[in-house]
Amino acid sequence: MTARPANAHQARLLKLLRDGGPNSRAQLGDQVELSRSKLAVEVDRLLGTGLVVADGLAASRGGRRSQNIRLNPGLRFLGVDIGATSVDVAVTNAELEVLGHLNQPMDVREGPVAVFEQVLDMAGKLKAAGLAEGFDGAGIGVPGPVRFPEGVPVAPPIMPGWDGFPVREVLSQELGCPIMVDNDVNLMAMGEQHAGVARSVADFLCVKIGTGIGCGIVVGGRVYRGTTGSAGDIGHIQAVPGGRPCACGNRGCLEAHFSGAALARDAVQAAQQGLSPELAARLETSGTLTAVDVAAAATAGDATALALIREGGTHVGQVLAGLVSFFNPALLVIGGGVTGLGHTLLAAVRTQIYRQSLPLATGNLPIVLGELGPTAGVTGAARLISDHLFSPA
Amino acid sequence: MTARPANAHQARLLKLLRDGGPNSRAQLGDQVELSRSKLAVEVDRLLGTGLVVADGLAASRGGRRSQNIRLNPGLRFLGVDIGATSVDVAVTNAELEVLGHLNQPMDVREGPVAVFEQVLDMAGKLKAAGLAEGFDGAGIGVPGPVRFPEGVPVAPPIMPGWDGFPVREVLSQELGCPIMVDNDVNLMAMGEQHAGVARSVADFLCVKIGTGIGCGIVVGGRVYRGTTGSAGDIGHIQAVPGGRPCACGNRGCLEAHFSGAALARDAVQAAQQGLSPELAARLETSGTLTAVDVAAAATAGDATALALIREGGTHVGQVLAGLVSFFNPALLVIGGGVTGLGHTLLAAVRTQIYRQSLPLATGNLPIVLGELGPTAGVTGAARLISDHLFSPA
Repeated sequence: MTARPANAHQARLLKLLRDGGPNSRAQLGDQVELSRSKLAVEVDRLLGTGLVVADGLAASRGGRRSQNIRLNPGLRFLGVDIGATSVDVAVTNAELEVLGHLNQPMDVREGPVAVFEQVLDMAGKLKAAGLAEGFDGAGIGVPGPVRFPEGVPVAPPIMPGWDGFPVREVLSQELGCPIMVDNDVNLMAMGEQHAGVARSVADFLCVKIGTGIGCGIVVGGRVYRGTTGSAGDIGHIQAVPGGRPCACGNRGCLEAHFSGAALARDAVQAAQQGLSPELAARLETSGTLTAVDVAAAATAGDATALALIREGGTHVGQVLAGLVSFFNPALLVIGGGVTGLGHTLLAAVRTQIYRQSLPLATGNLPIVLGELGPTAGVTGAARLISDHLFSPA
Repeated sequence: MTARPANAHQARLLKLLRDGGPNSRAQLGDQVELSRSKLAVEVDRLLGTGLVVADGLAASRGGRRSQNIRLNPGLRFLGVDIGATSVDVAVTNAELEVLGHLNQPMDVREGPVAVFEQVLDMAGKLKAAGLAEGFDGAGIGVPGPVRFPEGVPVAPPIMPGWDGFPVREVLSQELGCPIMVDNDVNLMAMGEQHAGVARSVADFLCVKIGTGIGCGIVVGGRVYRGTTGSAGDIGHIQAVPGGRPCACGNRGCLEAHFSGAALARDAVQAAQQGLSPELAARLETSGTLTAVDVAAAATAGDATALALIREGGTHVGQVLAGLVSFFNPALLVIGGGVTGLGHTLLAAVRTQIYRQSLPLATGNLPIVLGELGPTAGVTGAARLISDHLFSPA
């Protein structure tokens, strides 16, 4: 696909068809401020680009039956969500429905060359399964800050070897299609906005608790990335004055007290100190512990595991309470790998926020788990590239 | 003035003339995406409304000399900035230049009826001085959260009697012109954006430290008010876990540890404990102390006053460090009454933020004092109403 919309009207029509699915010319006309004749011209031009196709006639609304229009069903986007310890790759159609989705363990510290080899291999498998012949565009999420206009990771703390790597340029050549790159947390927010719990919400926060911790910020329906692309980087906000030393050189950072990595460390320590038979047994079996083990132990009623999750949720809530007062969001979404900890975590976060933020900011504030799980990131990635391609060049 | 722009093009032209001053048709054409003939039509229509007037011929750019256009020099806006302990009222022209400005002490706790009587009296004085015959619109700032669409204060903690008072409706009748109401901190941000230190900055924070403490948030050049109008309400973010009891019922809130009110309390205590001869002398003379006394004592080299300011700045910096990591602003402005404390305060705030935020967020972050002082709020108020009037109805 090389065609792009020629103007803002066409861009709007493409996004309406993406978000609302097939639609009649008459119904599209109800949603845009265009005269009937102008609308007809723009739709005809879009049909000419091949981005949209005619799809039969709509049911009559009283007069002549209107033509149905939809995005070209042959369009394919690739959504890639690179986490610290695994990678998700999915194929979507232009309406961002996930047609196929692969997940594989992977260590982001192996560096961009090794990781992209794996991504290309996974994309190849999705193609071989008949889900796509090629890709019209791809969105890529990486677990660190990104200089958005250039698609380049900057100073990513958990990603040695990625600093300044031209992700956009390299993958665009390898895949032969346009690429957009963003922080994984922003993509999760966009995914939940497109197809998850944040549909139709204009101003919200989406906190991802995985190996690290970050926050997607959506203002007026658009991701806010900050001046240097590091907005939402909340893992190093101070949660505990004079608290644990953090890899960043400060003490008491949120990530040092709660994240997938911190929780795993705490769990190993608790197991070794004999505080939890459940965790000790799991440590002996597998030689290591992760957040998944803590979740399982908590589900089995292990008091230490439950206490670790509650304490972590309280730290997260302490930091988020301040951000809720500051940002006054309409919705707060909690997602990421650690949401396996589920409602115990959510309850602790909620309690702390409701206790510590002003009633005016929390009065109507839903605090909920994300709905899409691992699909959020890849859906957000597809949305990122579609936002780009469905905008005037 | 009843005319409003008929469309987005006219609105854009009005704002260009407001922010850039008189301009030739040719130069305006360089700044908007309109054909020459379309531009001529829109300018002629604006001339017809009386919102803009012709103003002679511009210097030649090689061909025929272009007509100069400016906003009607007879337009008058009223800017009102109601603080906790004083009120500022100013008259501006349509380019938001302050033509006259009055300040009077006033206690916001006297309630809206008494305060507006005083505001109307001050507006009358400005009229009597020949600065305005009437007002084409007025912007009003109040020291608390505002339900923006309706122009009604909500649950204002320091403003008993104001909750739900229909400020917009009542003042609109009294003044006989359109009114917009906003939080005083947002207006300060808009003032610094229009004519102060934040000109041309898209994403910035503007922290006002007065009797209380609050933060204006500007995203993409527009004030972000949050879902219920309480965005930027940072006075009750926890600065000191388990710290001082706060009027809101929690402990350790920023406002309990540093604000004009907290600083005055601390100063009185220090004077009474014999820690500061300078403050003790001032307390004996006037029977009370304010931030102004602390500033004067600090200027005179009083160690206790300096320590109070530094400690306060550190608390402010602790909270702002987290918000800088979260929001990644291009600029952080510190303003409000307490800026009389000047560079001692600023240095403490800066030190804490640079120490505690990530380098990616602080690398290019200027942290500066506001430039406009008491003019910021009234200028922002005039800008608020002009944004409203210079938008399509």
